[in-house]
Amino acid sequence: MDVTQRLAHNLRRLRQRKGWSQEEFAFRADIHRTYVSDLERGARNPTITVVDRLAMALDVKLGELLD
Amino acid sequence: MDVTQRLAHNLRRLRQRKGWSQEEFAFRADIHRTYVSDLERGARNPTITVVDRLAMALDVKLGELLD
Repeated sequence: MDVTQRLAHNLRRLRQRKGWSQEEFAFRADIHRTYVSDLERGARNPTITVVDRLAMALDVKLGELLD
Repeated sequence: MDVTQRLAHNLRRLRQRKGWSQEEFAFRADIHRTYVSDLERGARNPTITVVDRLAMALDVKLGELLD
């Protein structure tokens, strides 16, 4: 599974564990809702700065999103 | 320390542990030598696909480069 697919899978799983909608997650990470949707489909190749914001919003380490 | 600085620090440390020049690391990761130099100065914000290639070349998990 490539890294964008691993990210997609982990984002969806961790967001749902928090009980958040994509809208709520997007708001907390300060990114656009459609971008969250794209990321959860593995349709984007984000920079590490964006993934760092996602990890902080979810209160996990970056490695938990990418490994 | 922001994520590009953490990456910079970890790349340099792990590359030197392997005994590789920036040229050799660049060749193994299939990226340009000047890009390796920029990354080790924290002067770039790479995509996760690029960082995944760096991690594979160094034989470490992505989290070891970013956390």
